Amino acid sequence: MLKLYYTASTCSLATHIVLEEVGADYSTVRIDFATEQQKSAEYLKINPKARVPALVTDEGILTETPAMLVYVAQRFPQARLAPMEDPFFFAQIQSFNSYLCSHVHVAHAHRMRGHRWVDADDAHSIAAMQRKVPESVGAGFEMIEREMLKGPWVMGDQYTICDPYLFTLAQWLEKDGVDPARIPRVIDHRRRMSERPGVKKAIAEETA
Amino acid sequence: MLKLYYTASTCSLATHIVLEEVGADYSTVRIDFATEQQKSAEYLKINPKARVPALVTDEGILTETPAMLVYVAQRFPQARLAPMEDPFFFAQIQSFNSYLCSHVHVAHAHRMRGHRWVDADDAHSIAAMQRKVPESVGAGFEMIEREMLKGPWVMGDQYTICDPYLFTLAQWLEKDGVDPARIPRVIDHRRRMSERPGVKKAIAEETA
Repeated sequence: MLKLYYTASTCSLATHIVLEEVGADYSTVRIDFATEQQKSAEYLKINPKARVPALVTDEGILTETPAMLVYVAQRFPQARLAPMEDPFFFAQIQSFNSYLCSHVHVAHAHRMRGHRWVDADDAHSIAAMQRKVPESVGAGFEMIEREMLKGPWVMGDQYTICDPYLFTLAQWLEKDGVDPARIPRVIDHRRRMSERPGVKKAIAEETA
Repeated sequence: MLKLYYTASTCSLATHIVLEEVGADYSTVRIDFATEQQKSAEYLKINPKARVPALVTDEGILTETPAMLVYVAQRFPQARLAPMEDPFFFAQIQSFNSYLCSHVHVAHAHRMRGHRWVDADDAHSIAAMQRKVPESVGAGFEMIEREMLKGPWVMGDQYTICDPYLFTLAQWLEKDGVDPARIPRVIDHRRRMSERPGVKKAIAEETA
């Protein structure tokens, strides 16, 4: 039995969608950022990094979205969401997801979490970071649009763990100030993703 | 035949070490950041993201260190640097490397690459980011010291792709202003890594 700790409007949605789409037997626990529940003593025992998502498995607890996505895919191989038998194909999946976590998500985080990289009371720098987000996040998605999204799915004809992860980060585009007209293929991918039953179910649960 | 594009003192060292340690038949190409060779038309055909590392394989080009490390390990399975048959063990490897790329490396990058997240001519914010690096990078390494580095290697008794990657980022600790006394286990790991023949050979080539 798997248990996902999540917060709505965060990257935990990616793993939530994949758990749904592979047909896993899982439960969820909502972590409330408004009351800083992620910093509570109870939650720090789950994830000392004070972040979501975290996935409780029979063998221990996992964190970090790229790792969790591969883990769920590997535990449910019949869904074929991260085939590993072809090292190059698997590496391309990993490369895409690594770009999302270390580049696109990081650029986005400078809008709301600037205090990670400058002093929290430095209003000038916090605002400067926020102003740069449309450009930096936009550039990341334009790289995806132009060089990485093969279509119709990220990896081409095969739907993989890259797709729910891209969809999850694309939820934030408008609030990040990115003009959707710059990235029509990403927007089309987001629209098609939003019609999948597993995606609808995960979002409905998170926003209920 | 594999070909690694690298720059000294960057995260490309991790893949370089792993190529050496698995006994791969590979060549290297040095990219000169001083002349901005990573932005040349020629290199952008290799990696449109204008970063190192990039790994040319017979099947295509790979980027992003976590993906490249797993790829090399998977192509040379006898070295047992990323065993995949145990999904939880493999997920822990991936989780560690994901933390390095999306958290520790990102914190470090705010010392020299602040222009990614604020306007390049905003001297106040660029300096504010630099001042925060000892704290943010230090906190990342303290999390590794306390919660993640099992010892003697990252994953315990088994040496994996996590070890060269941690070693690579630990090269930057002093310049990042992190007090080594805060993280004695990381420092001991770095010392033991530096004695490995493959590590010595990779560093010697990069600094020749």
